[in-house]
Amino acid sequence: MNVVITGGAGFLGQRLAKRLLERGSLSGPFGRAQHIDRITLVDVNPPPDWHDRRVAAVAGDIADRALLEHAIDSSTTSVFHLAAVVSGMAETDFDLGMRVNVDASRALLDVCRSRGERPRVVFASSVAVYGGPLPEIVQDATAVLPQSSYGTQKAIVELLINDYTRRGFVDGRVLRLPTISVRPGRPNAAASSFASGIIREPLSGEVAVCPVDPDTRLWLQSPATAVDCFVQMHEVAPSALGSNRIVNAPGLSVTVRDMVAALERVAGPAVTSRIRWQRDPRVEKIVATWPGAWDTTRAQALGLPCDEDFEAIIEAYVRETGSA
Amino acid sequence: MNVVITGGAGFLGQRLAKRLLERGSLSGPFGRAQHIDRITLVDVNPPPDWHDRRVAAVAGDIADRALLEHAIDSSTTSVFHLAAVVSGMAETDFDLGMRVNVDASRALLDVCRSRGERPRVVFASSVAVYGGPLPEIVQDATAVLPQSSYGTQKAIVELLINDYTRRGFVDGRVLRLPTISVRPGRPNAAASSFASGIIREPLSGEVAVCPVDPDTRLWLQSPATAVDCFVQMHEVAPSALGSNRIVNAPGLSVTVRDMVAALERVAGPAVTSRIRWQRDPRVEKIVATWPGAWDTTRAQALGLPCDEDFEAIIEAYVRETGSA
Repeated sequence: MNVVITGGAGFLGQRLAKRLLERGSLSGPFGRAQHIDRITLVDVNPPPDWHDRRVAAVAGDIADRALLEHAIDSSTTSVFHLAAVVSGMAETDFDLGMRVNVDASRALLDVCRSRGERPRVVFASSVAVYGGPLPEIVQDATAVLPQSSYGTQKAIVELLINDYTRRGFVDGRVLRLPTISVRPGRPNAAASSFASGIIREPLSGEVAVCPVDPDTRLWLQSPATAVDCFVQMHEVAPSALGSNRIVNAPGLSVTVRDMVAALERVAGPAVTSRIRWQRDPRVEKIVATWPGAWDTTRAQALGLPCDEDFEAIIEAYVRETGSA
Repeated sequence: MNVVITGGAGFLGQRLAKRLLERGSLSGPFGRAQHIDRITLVDVNPPPDWHDRRVAAVAGDIADRALLEHAIDSSTTSVFHLAAVVSGMAETDFDLGMRVNVDASRALLDVCRSRGERPRVVFASSVAVYGGPLPEIVQDATAVLPQSSYGTQKAIVELLINDYTRRGFVDGRVLRLPTISVRPGRPNAAASSFASGIIREPLSGEVAVCPVDPDTRLWLQSPATAVDCFVQMHEVAPSALGSNRIVNAPGLSVTVRDMVAALERVAGPAVTSRIRWQRDPRVEKIVATWPGAWDTTRAQALGLPCDEDFEAIIEAYVRETGSA
C-alpha cells in the first residue's frame, strides 16, 4: 500500500511519516492490517531526503490536480491531509487560503474518488472552526462559527469529508486539532505561533513576544500526541465513527500564565524572564474566539490519547531538542 | 439601484420580484431607503416577460462567471440568491449540485466583492443543513450535520457568506428556510416535494402519493411568509445581525397527519381520500434527518414574520389559485 501525507515536509508530516515507518502497517479498506510499501510526501517545499527507498517525495502546488493524481495512485489506501495555508496567512491572503485550504482539499477528495478504492482520508482540522459565543466546554453538538478565513476553510472541508464519506467516495475522518505546542523551528504566520514561541525561544536563549493576555485560555496538544491521534483516527473502524466523521481531539486546557509557570518549573526564572508581554490586537482577535476546552468523551471512546500535563510536554520538548 | 434575484424565474423568485416592485424601495448600503430602478432576474430558464421596463431577464448558467458579471453590475446594491439545484437532484447528480450550489454561489460572492460596493446578499439556505441526532427543538447554537449533498452545499455557502461578510466583501445574510408549502405547479425533484403535493394534487382532483409516515414531523412555511422573510432579512440593520449572519426562519411544526387533517377541514374527506400512502425509503431517509422545529427567538427579534397555522396556509393557497 501507498500512504500519502500532504504537508509531508512539514513538522507534523515528517513526524507522522517516521511513526508510520516504525509501525510498518495500517488498516486497509476491510480493516485488515496492510504492509506500508511506500509513503509519498507531498509538499510545496521539497521534503528532505530520507535515504529510505520506501519514502517518495512529490514537491509542488497541492492545488494542481495533476500533482495529486501523480501522488495518489491506485495503490493508495490512506491519505493524511495536513497541507494548509496557516491562519495568519489565510487572513492576509484570502484567495491563497481558499485555493490551498479549500480547492486543493476538494481536488484531493475528487482524485481519491476517481480511484474508486475508497481510501481512508484523515484530514487535519482545527480549533479555529469555533468562534462567537461559546459554552465553557464546547460539545460535539456545538455549532461552528469561524471568526477567521482559515477556520471557515477548515469547516468547509469538514463538511465535504462528511459528504464524500456518506456517498462512499472516500472513508473520511476529520481530526479537529487543538493548538499544537511545542512546535520546534521558527515562528510562522499562524495566529497561534506564540503558543510555541513563548516556550521555544526562551529555552534557546532568545526573547519571545507574547501577543495575548496571560489569562487567555488555550486548548493545547503536544506534537507527539497529535501524531498518535492521526494514526488512531486512521485505525478506528468506520462503524465506530458512524455518519459524523468529525472528532474533537483531546487537549489540555491551560492559560498562558499556566504555560509560563510550567516553563519556570522546568527551566527556571532566568528562562521565563525572556518573555516580553506585548499585546497584538490582530492576534488576540483571532485567538480569543477559539475555545479554551472541549468535551473529549467521543475522542476517548475512540481511543485517542491525551497529554498528561503541560510540564510533561515541555520536558519532552527539552529531551527531544536538547534545549536548555 | 439594481436588485438581482437568482432563481428569478422560479416560483419564489417571481413572487419576490412582484413584492419588491410593490414596495418600490429597499435599504441601501447606509440603511437609507433607495428606489428600485431595476430588478434583474437571473435563471437557467428564461423568466416570463413582465411587460415592465423595470424588470430585466438574464437567462443562462449561473455558474458562468461572465453571466454573473453581466447581471450584477456596479449599480447593484442587493442580491437575493435563490438559485439552486434541489435536494433530490443534488443527491442524484453530485457534480451538478456542487457546481450550481457551491461554485456558482462562490462566483456570485466574488463578483459582488469585485464591485467593491458591499452589496446586501440574502442567501436562501435550508432546513436540510441539519441532520443526525437533534434536540427536539433545534437551537441557533446547534451544530449542522447535513445528511444530503444539498444540505452540505447549503452549509458550505453559509460559511462563505459569514466569512465574506466578516471581511467586508459583502453584507451577507442567510435565511434558513423551513420546507415551503404549498408550492403551486408540478412536483419537482426536491425530497420535500410531497409536502406541497399532498395538498395541491388532491385539491385539483388528482391523486398524490405521500412517501413518508403520517407521524413525520415537518417544519413548514408558506410561500407568502418566505417572501416576507426574504425582504425583512434584507432590511435588518447590519448591527442587529452581528457576526453570525445565519438566521433560522420562523415555521410551523406539524406532522403530515396534521397537514392532512387541516386539508380535510378546509376541503372535505373527498379531497383527502385522493392521498395514497406509499413510503419511499429514499425520500424518508433524507426527510427524517430534518428538524421538526427550531427555536425562533432570534428570527422574531429581527422582525421576521410567522405563519398562523397550516389551515390558513391551505386557505390562502385555495384563494390564490382558485383550487377546490
